[in-house]
Amino acid sequence: MHQPREVPLSDRERIKRHLDYDFTEPIRDPLWSHIYLSPGLKRVVATSQFQKLGGIRQLGPTYMVYPGATHTRLNHSLGVFSLAQKMIQTLISYDAADDLTDCGVRSFLCAALLHDLGHFPFAHSLKELPLASHESLTARTILETSLASIIEHETGADPSMTAQIIYTETDDVTSKEVEIYRKILSGVLDPDKLDYLTRDAYFCGVPYGVQDVDFIFSKLRFRREAGLVVDEQGLHAVENVLFSKYLMYRTIYWHKTVRIATAMIKKALHSEISSGAVHAEELYGLDDSTFFCRFGHSRYRSAELISRVGARKLYKLAFELPFEETLVSHSRLSDLLYRAQVEKSMADQGGLGYNGVIIDIPEPITFEVDLLIESGGQLVPFVEAGTVFSKEVVSGFARALRKIRIFTVGGDADTPELSDAAERWLN
Amino acid sequence: MHQPREVPLSDRERIKRHLDYDFTEPIRDPLWSHIYLSPGLKRVVATSQFQKLGGIRQLGPTYMVYPGATHTRLNHSLGVFSLAQKMIQTLISYDAADDLTDCGVRSFLCAALLHDLGHFPFAHSLKELPLASHESLTARTILETSLASIIEHETGADPSMTAQIIYTETDDVTSKEVEIYRKILSGVLDPDKLDYLTRDAYFCGVPYGVQDVDFIFSKLRFRREAGLVVDEQGLHAVENVLFSKYLMYRTIYWHKTVRIATAMIKKALHSEISSGAVHAEELYGLDDSTFFCRFGHSRYRSAELISRVGARKLYKLAFELPFEETLVSHSRLSDLLYRAQVEKSMADQGGLGYNGVIIDIPEPITFEVDLLIESGGQLVPFVEAGTVFSKEVVSGFARALRKIRIFTVGGDADTPELSDAAERWLN
Amino acid sequence: MHQPREVPLSDRERIKRHLDYDFTEPIRDPLWSHIYLSPGLKRVVATSQFQKLGGIRQLGPTYMVYPGATHTRLNHSLGVFSLAQKMIQTLISYDAADDLTDCGVRSFLCAALLHDLGHFPFAHSLKELPLASHESLTARTILETSLASIIEHETGADPSMTAQIIYTETDDVTSKEVEIYRKILSGVLDPDKLDYLTRDAYFCGVPYGVQDVDFIFSKLRFRREAGLVVDEQGLHAVENVLFSKYLMYRTIYWHKTVRIATAMIKKALHSEISSGAVHAEELYGLDDSTFFCRFGHSRYRSAELISRVGARKLYKLAFELPFEETLVSHSRLSDLLYRAQVEKSMADQGGLGYNGVIIDIPEPITFEVDLLIESGGQLVPFVEAGTVFSKEVVSGFARALRKIRIFTVGGDADTPELSDAAERWLN
Amino acid sequence: MHQPREVPLSDRERIKRHLDYDFTEPIRDPLWSHIYLSPGLKRVVATSQFQKLGGIRQLGPTYMVYPGATHTRLNHSLGVFSLAQKMIQTLISYDAADDLTDCGVRSFLCAALLHDLGHFPFAHSLKELPLASHESLTARTILETSLASIIEHETGADPSMTAQIIYTETDDVTSKEVEIYRKILSGVLDPDKLDYLTRDAYFCGVPYGVQDVDFIFSKLRFRREAGLVVDEQGLHAVENVLFSKYLMYRTIYWHKTVRIATAMIKKALHSEISSGAVHAEELYGLDDSTFFCRFGHSRYRSAELISRVGARKLYKLAFELPFEETLVSHSRLSDLLYRAQVEKSMADQGGLGYNGVIIDIPEPITFEVDLLIESGGQLVPFVEAGTVFSKEVVSGFARALRKIRIFTVGGDADTPELSDAAERWLN
Repeated sequence: MHQPREVPLSDRERIKRHLDYDFTEPIRDPLWSHIYLSPGLKRVVATSQFQKLGGIRQLGPTYMVYPGATHTRLNHSLGVFSLAQKMIQTLISYDAADDLTDCGVRSFLCAALLHDLGHFPFAHSLKELPLASHESLTARTILETSLASIIEHETGADPSMTAQIIYTETDDVTSKEVEIYRKILSGVLDPDKLDYLTRDAYFCGVPYGVQDVDFIFSKLRFRREAGLVVDEQGLHAVENVLFSKYLMYRTIYWHKTVRIATAMIKKALHSEISSGAVHAEELYGLDDSTFFCRFGHSRYRSAELISRVGARKLYKLAFELPFEETLVSHSRLSDLLYRAQVEKSMADQGGLGYNGVIIDIPEPITFEVDLLIESGGQLVPFVEAGTVFSKEVVSGFARALRKIRIFTVGGDADTPELSDAAERWLN
Repeated sequence: MHQPREVPLSDRERIKRHLDYDFTEPIRDPLWSHIYLSPGLKRVVATSQFQKLGGIRQLGPTYMVYPGATHTRLNHSLGVFSLAQKMIQTLISYDAADDLTDCGVRSFLCAALLHDLGHFPFAHSLKELPLASHESLTARTILETSLASIIEHETGADPSMTAQIIYTETDDVTSKEVEIYRKILSGVLDPDKLDYLTRDAYFCGVPYGVQDVDFIFSKLRFRREAGLVVDEQGLHAVENVLFSKYLMYRTIYWHKTVRIATAMIKKALHSEISSGAVHAEELYGLDDSTFFCRFGHSRYRSAELISRVGARKLYKLAFELPFEETLVSHSRLSDLLYRAQVEKSMADQGGLGYNGVIIDIPEPITFEVDLLIESGGQLVPFVEAGTVFSKEVVSGFARALRKIRIFTVGGDADTPELSDAAERWLN
Repeated sequence: MHQPREVPLSDRERIKRHLDYDFTEPIRDPLWSHIYLSPGLKRVVATSQFQKLGGIRQLGPTYMVYPGATHTRLNHSLGVFSLAQKMIQTLISYDAADDLTDCGVRSFLCAALLHDLGHFPFAHSLKELPLASHESLTARTILETSLASIIEHETGADPSMTAQIIYTETDDVTSKEVEIYRKILSGVLDPDKLDYLTRDAYFCGVPYGVQDVDFIFSKLRFRREAGLVVDEQGLHAVENVLFSKYLMYRTIYWHKTVRIATAMIKKALHSEISSGAVHAEELYGLDDSTFFCRFGHSRYRSAELISRVGARKLYKLAFELPFEETLVSHSRLSDLLYRAQVEKSMADQGGLGYNGVIIDIPEPITFEVDLLIESGGQLVPFVEAGTVFSKEVVSGFARALRKIRIFTVGGDADTPELSDAAERWLN
Repeated sequence: MHQPREVPLSDRERIKRHLDYDFTEPIRDPLWSHIYLSPGLKRVVATSQFQKLGGIRQLGPTYMVYPGATHTRLNHSLGVFSLAQKMIQTLISYDAADDLTDCGVRSFLCAALLHDLGHFPFAHSLKELPLASHESLTARTILETSLASIIEHETGADPSMTAQIIYTETDDVTSKEVEIYRKILSGVLDPDKLDYLTRDAYFCGVPYGVQDVDFIFSKLRFRREAGLVVDEQGLHAVENVLFSKYLMYRTIYWHKTVRIATAMIKKALHSEISSGAVHAEELYGLDDSTFFCRFGHSRYRSAELISRVGARKLYKLAFELPFEETLVSHSRLSDLLYRAQVEKSMADQGGLGYNGVIIDIPEPITFEVDLLIESGGQLVPFVEAGTVFSKEVVSGFARALRKIRIFTVGGDADTPELSDAAERWLN
C-alpha cells in the first residue's frame, strides 16, 4: 500500500509491517482500552467456537460472592491476545528475535486469542477427574473444526503451530520457535496471568490483583539462549505478581463459598462419571447454562447437588482445618474414591443422607518462580536475584491457601456426631 | 442493644437507628465499594426471585459490541439499593423528612432493591408490544409470591407499600409518603439513573457515563412541599446527567449493532404474539438463556431471527436516515402492524424472503428535566435556573438519537431494488 | 542498528523508524502510564528552562479549593508531548502525511513538549495587561537561550521551526508543514486540551473532564487539503470535549474562589504596571514561589493584595450577576482603567479603603468548533454534521460562565452603601 | 436543632451526634471523594500553620523521578483526618468504646488532621541529625501558637490532649484514653499509612500502594483490653499493607534518585550543623521554597550541594552494594561523623574535591507487625495467626531495601581510584 518495493522483505520486516498496519479493528475493553484485531482475527472472533466463550463465566460461581464477577472467558481471551500482541511488539525490537517468522508470530497471536477455547464450566476444578485437559480440547477444536481453515486462510497462521503452542503435552515434534512461544504464553509473567489477575480484580472490585503491566513490558528482555527474561529493575514487579496471585486465591478464587459450589459440582460429576452415568465427552463444549440444564436433570443420582448450585442453595461450612501434606490421614484424601468413602462414612455417622457430607481440598497449585533475571549482563534465577521471596516463602503461599473443609446442608449446626467422625478421620 | 431506653422513639430516631446499626452485611461492588445489607435484606437477596436477575444481562445484546457489558440486573439492583440508602441518609437530616415513617423507609429500600424484579430479556425494547410492564410484573412478584412474606417478616417493610412505590399506574389510593418515595426512585437524579449510567460506563469501558454521585448527594435538599430539590450549586451535575444519558444512548444503548439485535427480537416476537403462537405470559420470568432456548425453537415461524441473535449472526445495515416525526411516512411506521406490512412489501420488491427486511425505529425516549432548583431560597424549574440546556436543546438530544434503519441479511450489498423500495416508502 | 541498508530512506520511513526505535526513556505519568522520551528530549527535559515549569502549578490558586490540584505545567507538558506523539503515530499511516519531513516531526514533538515554556504565574488571567504572550516568550526562550543548541544537536529538530509552530503571530514566512503542525497543536481536539481536561479532572478529583482519548485518536483522519479531520463516528467525542470544557470552567477553572484570588493578583499587577512600578519583564521567568516573594514585598502599593493571596487570606464575594455583553454598563468594564475607576468610586462610596473593592469579569473565552467532520467521504463543518450542539448552544456555554463579581474584604457583610453603588454602576 | 431533649446525653450519644451532624463542610479529594470538616475544623484548616503544609511536598524530591508526585502534606493531612473520622465511626459502634469522651474524640480528630504540622523539608531523612522530631515540633505548634485557642474554642477539642496524642515521647502523664488514640493513630493499620500508601501510589501513577480501605474498616474491632484489633478475615489486608509498604519503598520512597537528592541534602546539613553554621531552629517552619532559598545561599560551605538539588543537578551513582548490618565496616558508617571522614578520604583518594563523594545508607526502618488478630474469640499476635509473613520474612523486607550507595558528580565514570578506595572501606 505504501510505495512499491522490489527487495524481498526479511521476516522481521514482515512481522513489523503486520503489527504496524494490519490491526485496524478496535474492540473496547474496560481494562486495556481499545484492543485492535486484524480483519482475519475479527472473523475468528465471530466464529461460534469463539463466541461460546461468552457463555462461560471466567470465575464460575464466584459471582455468588462478588456479584461483579460476570466477565467471561471471551473477555479474558481478548485481553490475553492484546497483551500478547504488546509483548511481541517489544520482543521484535531485539536482535535475538531473528528466529521468529511471520507465520510463527501469526500462529502465536492466534494461540493467545484461542488458548481457552476448550474450556467448559468448572474445568479448572475438575482436573482430578478422568477428563481431557482444556488445552487438548482447544487443540482439537483448532485442528478438527471449521476453525482450522478460517485460521489458515484469514489470518495467515498455521493452525497446527497454533495448536502446538497451546497444547504442550502433544507427542508432535515441535520447532524451537514453538518452544519460544510456549514459554511466552505460559510462564511467570505470561499474558494470561497478567490479564486474569488485573481483570478479575477489576470486575470483583478489589485492589489486590492489579499489575503494573506497562512497566513489566518495559523490563522484558529477549535473549536467544534463554527466551524472555526480566531486567533486575523489574524484580519487584515479579514479586508483585506472585503476591497478588496469593491474595487473589485467598480472597476470591478459593473463597469459602466458591469452594463450596465447586466441591458440590465436583462430587456430583465424580460420582456420575465413576458410575458411568455421565461420559466425559458430554461435558466438553458446554457453557454455563447448558451445563446446569443438562446435569441438573433428575435422571442423575447427584443431580440435586448440581441444581442446588444452579439455584445458589449451597451447602454450609461445618469444619475447616489446614491441609497438612505430611499427615497420611490428609494426603490419602487426595484420592477421590477414598474421599467419597470417607464422606459416606461421615454422613452415615452424622445421620445425614446421600451426598450429605462433602470434603473439599483445593487442587494443588504452584507459584512458578522459574524465571531468569538479568543483572549486570548476567542471567540469575529469580530466587537468587535479591528477592524477598525465597522458595520457602513462595511455597508457604500455596500451603497457607490449602484447607480441608467439610460441608453439609446445615453447616456447623449439624455438629455433634459429625464432629466426632471428622475428628477420627482427619487426625 | 446499646443502653436501655424508656421513652418511645420518634420515627426519625427509629429510622436513624435502623440506618446506623442494621446494615451489617457487606457485599463487594466494583462501583460503590462495599454495599451493606441488613440481615433481612440479605434473605431477600437470596430468594430465587431476586437471584433470577443474575441471569439477565443489564444491557442485553450490548456485550456483542462492548464485550465487557456482562453485568446483570442483579448488579444494578444492588447498586440502586446502595444509592437509595445514601439518599435516605441525606434526607433524614432535613426537618421536612418528618413525614417519613420507619416502615415507609424500609418499604422504600425494598423498592429500590426490587424495582427490576419483573424484568425479562429485551423488556425495554418490547414496550410497543401488548405486554405487561415490568413494573406491574414486579408488583405482582412482590405481592403474590413467597417474597411478600419474606419482605414483611424479615425486613419490617410493607410489601404493598413497596409494590406501590414501584408500580405507579396502579389504581390503589396511595399515601403522600408513597408519592415522596416514587419521586425519589424515579426522577431526573434518581438512584436508578445514577447507578446505570456510571455502571454501564464502567463495564463497557467508556468515560461518558460517570456521575459525580457523592457531590450530587451533597447538593440534594428535601422540602416538604416539593420533595427532592437540588441546590443551585449542583445545577451542572444535573446538566452532566442529561448529557451523559445522551452520550450513552448514542454510543452504547442505541449502538447500531445493539439496535439490529433488538429489532430482530422485536420483529420475531411481534409476529408470534400477533399470530397467537406466543402468549405474553410465556415471556415473563425468563432469563437470557431460557429466552433463547424457548423461542429459538423451530416450532415458531420467526424462530430463525431469534436463534440468529443467540448465535450472533446478525442482519446488517442497508440504510439509515434520521427519523422525522413530522413526516407522515415516518410517523406511520410507529404502528408495528403497518411497519410489518412495509417490511414485507420491501422484502418482496427486493427479492428477499420471509422476514428478509427489518425496519428499526428506536422507541421514543424522554430526557426528563422536571426538577426544581433551589436558588437563594427560591424554587425554580431547572430549565429556568441558568442552565445551558434549554428545553429545545434537550429535546434535540432525543431527536438526534432516533434514526430509521433498514436491516437485511446482506446489508448494503442487497441494495438496487431494495433501495428503490426504501426511497418510495420513506419519503 | 538493525541490518544495513543501501537505499536512502524516504522521510516517511525515517519518521517511522524514529518513532519506533528512538523513544526509549520512560517517565511514569499517572494519566498516560509510561511516557517515552528520546535520549535527546530527555536532555531537553533536564534543562533549567524546562524544569522551571515544575515550579508553576497548572491551575494556579485552584489548590485552595481543590487541594489535589498541585500538578504543574511540567506534568502537563509531558502529557501534551505524549499525546502529540500518539497523534503523529496515527497521522503517519495516512498517505496525505507525505508532506511531513523527519525534521518537521522532530520540531513538532519539541513544540508539543515546550509549548508552555514561557508561562509565568497567572499568565492566563493577565492577558488584558500589556504583557508579552506566553507563546512569544516561549519562542524567545527556544531561540535565544542555550536551549536552541540543545534542541538542534540533541533532538534533530529545527529550533526556529519549533518556535514557529508555537508562536503563530510571528511575521516570519512559514512553510505549509508548519501550518499543519500549528493546526494539530491548537484546535478543537488538540493534545493540549485532551491532556489538560483529563489531567485537571484527575488531580482535582472530579469526573467531568475525562476524555475518551484512545477512541478519539482512532477517529482522527488526515487529509492533505484539510489537515486533521474527524470521522463522523467520532462526532460525539467532540461534543464531549466541548461540554467537558464548559463543566470544567464552571466547577474548577472559574470557581468563585479561584476568581477571587485571580482578580486580586490582576488588580495588583495592573495597578503596579500602570504606575510603572513594575515592568513586564520582571514577571517573565518567575515561578510560583518567586512570584510571591518578589511582589508580596511592601515596596509595592498593592503588595497587600498579593501577599494576601499567598497567605490564602482572600477577599469575599459581595455580589454576583451575569455579565451581559450588550449592556454598555457591563461592556465598558472590560477596559481595565475604567474598571479601576469604578472600583475606586465604589470603595469610596462604601467607605472601604484603598483597593477595597475588586470587580471581576472573567476573560473572554471561546469554545472552538472549527473542525471538519468526514461523513461518507464528504467533509462537513462540525456544527452542520448532526451535532446536538448548534453554534448558539456553544456560545451559550461561554455566556453562562461569565459573571460579574464584586469582592471586598468582608464580602456580603459590607453591603448597604456598597450595594447602592453597585446598583448604580451595573445597571 | 432536632427536637428538644431534657435528659443529658451520654458521651456516646454526644459523639455520635457530633459525627452525624457537625461535619457539613465538604472538601474534594481525589482519593476519598468528599472529605467533610466541621465548621471549627475548617477554621483550623484556614490557619497559616496548617496552610504551610501546602508548601511541603509529601514526597520531597520524588517528583524528579515520578513527576506526578506533587502532592503536599496538606493533601495527606486531610486524608488522614478523613480516614480517622471513618475509624471513629466504626469504633463508636462497639460497647468497648464506652471509655471514649466527646472531648477526647474531638481532640483525636484534631490530632489526625494536625499530626504533620511540625514537618519541614526532608525531615524524615534527617532523623540522624540533632534535630527536634517533627512530632515534638507539632506539639509545640499546637500548644504555643494561636492554634491552641482556635482548637479549643472552635472545635471543642483539648489542645493538650491533641498534642499528647501526637507527641508520644512527652513526660506528661497521660490518660488511658490518650493511649487508645495513640494506638489508633500510629499502628500497623493506622490512618496515616492507609492514606500515604494509597495517595502516593495515585499521584505517582503506580498500582503498588493501593489499599482495600473500606474492607479494612469493616474488619476492625475494638476491644477494651486490647484496643484496635483485626478480625481474622482481614488478615490478608494486613499482609497487603506490609507488602505494599515494601514495594513502595523499593520503587518510590527509596528510589535511587530520591536517595541521591536526599543524601546530598543530608550531607550538607550535617556538615553545616556540625560546624555550627546552621542552627536546628532555622530549619523548623520552612517549606520547600524557603528551604532552598535559605540554604542554597553561598554563605554556607555546602550550599552547592543544596542548590544542586534545587536545580536537579544531582550526583550520580558510582557503586551500590547491600548494607550488611553484621559487617563492622558497614555498621560503623551509621555514625555520620565517621561517615563524613570516610567520604573525605575516598574523595581525596579519588582525586575528587570538597564534598566530592557521598555515601548513602537509608535510615533504619521497621515494618511493624505488632497487631492482634481476633480468631474464634481469641486474640492472637499477627505473626502467629496464619500469615504467610513470618517475622523473618518481614525483617527481610527491611533488609532487602537497605543499600550502601556511593555518589559522585560523575557517577560510575569516576571509577578507577575511587573503586579501590571503596573496596578498601566497604569490605
